[in-house]
Amino acid sequence: MGKGAKSPNEFEIIARYFAPLAAREPGALGLLDDAAVLAISADRKLVITTDTLVEGIHFMGDDPPESLAGKLLAVNLSDLAAMGSEPFAYTLSLALPKAWSPQRLEDWLSGFCAGLRKAQEQPGVTLVGGDTVGTPGPLCLTATALGTAEPGRELLRSGALPGDVVYLSGTLGDAALGLRVLRNQLPGVDPTDGEALIRRYRMPEPRVALGLRLAGIAHGVADVSDGLVADLSHICSASGVLATIHTDWLPLSKATVDVLARDPTLLASVLAGGDDYELVFTAAPEASVDIGRISRDLALPLTAIGRIDAAEPGHRNQLVRVVDALGREVDVIDGGFRHF
Amino acid sequence: MGKGAKSPNEFEIIARYFAPLAAREPGALGLLDDAAVLAISADRKLVITTDTLVEGIHFMGDDPPESLAGKLLAVNLSDLAAMGSEPFAYTLSLALPKAWSPQRLEDWLSGFCAGLRKAQEQPGVTLVGGDTVGTPGPLCLTATALGTAEPGRELLRSGALPGDVVYLSGTLGDAALGLRVLRNQLPGVDPTDGEALIRRYRMPEPRVALGLRLAGIAHGVADVSDGLVADLSHICSASGVLATIHTDWLPLSKATVDVLARDPTLLASVLAGGDDYELVFTAAPEASVDIGRISRDLALPLTAIGRIDAAEPGHRNQLVRVVDALGREVDVIDGGFRHF
Repeated sequence: MGKGAKSPNEFEIIARYFAPLAAREPGALGLLDDAAVLAISADRKLVITTDTLVEGIHFMGDDPPESLAGKLLAVNLSDLAAMGSEPFAYTLSLALPKAWSPQRLEDWLSGFCAGLRKAQEQPGVTLVGGDTVGTPGPLCLTATALGTAEPGRELLRSGALPGDVVYLSGTLGDAALGLRVLRNQLPGVDPTDGEALIRRYRMPEPRVALGLRLAGIAHGVADVSDGLVADLSHICSASGVLATIHTDWLPLSKATVDVLARDPTLLASVLAGGDDYELVFTAAPEASVDIGRISRDLALPLTAIGRIDAAEPGHRNQLVRVVDALGREVDVIDGGFRHF
Repeated sequence: MGKGAKSPNEFEIIARYFAPLAAREPGALGLLDDAAVLAISADRKLVITTDTLVEGIHFMGDDPPESLAGKLLAVNLSDLAAMGSEPFAYTLSLALPKAWSPQRLEDWLSGFCAGLRKAQEQPGVTLVGGDTVGTPGPLCLTATALGTAEPGRELLRSGALPGDVVYLSGTLGDAALGLRVLRNQLPGVDPTDGEALIRRYRMPEPRVALGLRLAGIAHGVADVSDGLVADLSHICSASGVLATIHTDWLPLSKATVDVLARDPTLLASVLAGGDDYELVFTAAPEASVDIGRISRDLALPLTAIGRIDAAEPGHRNQLVRVVDALGREVDVIDGGFRHF
């Protein structure tokens, strides 16, 4: 590349450099899905994913270690949820700043491990290994989560079909707005709303139970980590289809509705911001009764937000169309999606 | 802890903070072994380990990316080798400096992936997943390696028995001296010797084939990553035994013999320096014929370097005694073993 050239984004890096190293293993899914699905015995598949959080990029230095632990585990378990996998174990790799005093190190470790203990409980996962090293740089946290899936029951990004309805779990955009509250970019926000949004940013809930229920029902599934438009684009790209979503169908929390009432332009953050860790999935229209039952059983809203269409030539650059209540196309800028 | 208190070392951190989070899973082995061994189907166990390398701590900024890739994979595969496990896959998490230019990023990724391609080949492992993020800090590389083992055939640190012979594969201390060459701490070293030592530091060979052959023969096994004395201490601690090793029995390369001839005090680095990634293991004296055969089959020296004795009260602080050719005890300072 020439001088002044743009750095390749994460997806270009994967395609160009890493996918060839995974070519021998079909279960690696070309490194394009939320996790790998490896056939290691006749009756179970192993599902594995890894995610790293870096201070100054994915979290702030003053984020409480308890919620960081919860978030690190949640982002990994969310990937397993998106594969319809039952999580059972995880490993940790922690690079801890050498500049920390012994007191700060012990305080941080106490808080972090208390957060892990809490976050382990409900999904029923256990720490099974790890590495702890010093770093001259910022805190850098990696977890690798392991789950199992019954052969043939795993959920992939690549199964979406024309005619499918697009569903989203929970509510959209709270995490992106929570981050703005933390950065003092939403002055005048109602304090109760602000706290609710921050909580959703700091303590995402991986939709493990939902993922397990979607086997046999959902066609294409991803978790919302990079942002709804980006993650739904991944489903469309893997499935060779297009999606249209309707802004007036989107499930929004009271806090997000309040914020958008004051500043409607923040809708772009809601659509493109990541970190919600909800599941976006497609299913046939006939599945609506089953999906309604799952929603009631889990006490989790599952909202139809759009539909899937067959891909047409010339649409490769815009896999997801966003339209408002009047059917007008909403412009979502591509630049805001990526962490890298 | 009070002001000026010492930071806990990696083993204290594991015992105090992380082991309780692993208590429910017996296969986590209390986070004290080289890897976890998880029962996930009737006929195979899953063996998993993770290791992180940080620029400025575990490697230098100008280390070639090809050899870094080899080293990252090797340190993880070495842990699997020490469990008698057959590796099959790995995941990567890379935190890449945001300060790098696009050109530098692409050059680094090209070199790193070429190194991975080479390092994957012989052990027959495949990349199956990963995460690539930017960091405001130094390069931070994590790999998680997966292997399988037949139930009952896994090698543990905890099996050493009084009367066992202690064996070491390959040669000892080359990596620690190689690091000294790179740091210009061995002025006047013969250039050929220097290159050989640097190669051993940069490109360790995980002893995967040896680990697979030791099932049913070796009693206590670890890889030499923290240094011979530290890693043999881990075996002794897990097994409740003591070890004595003889400096004049140690297998040394020509380059290391040359360096020690010029400066005999460097023996402490050879004994305590890490990064050799050889296997240290114990076996009954009767196993010597089998071990000789394995050594010939693999064209890899397997050298008896000492013996295991029953633990006596009062010996808890010194699990490994080192004696010279005249039977005099050699003092090995404990401070030099740990990366953290």
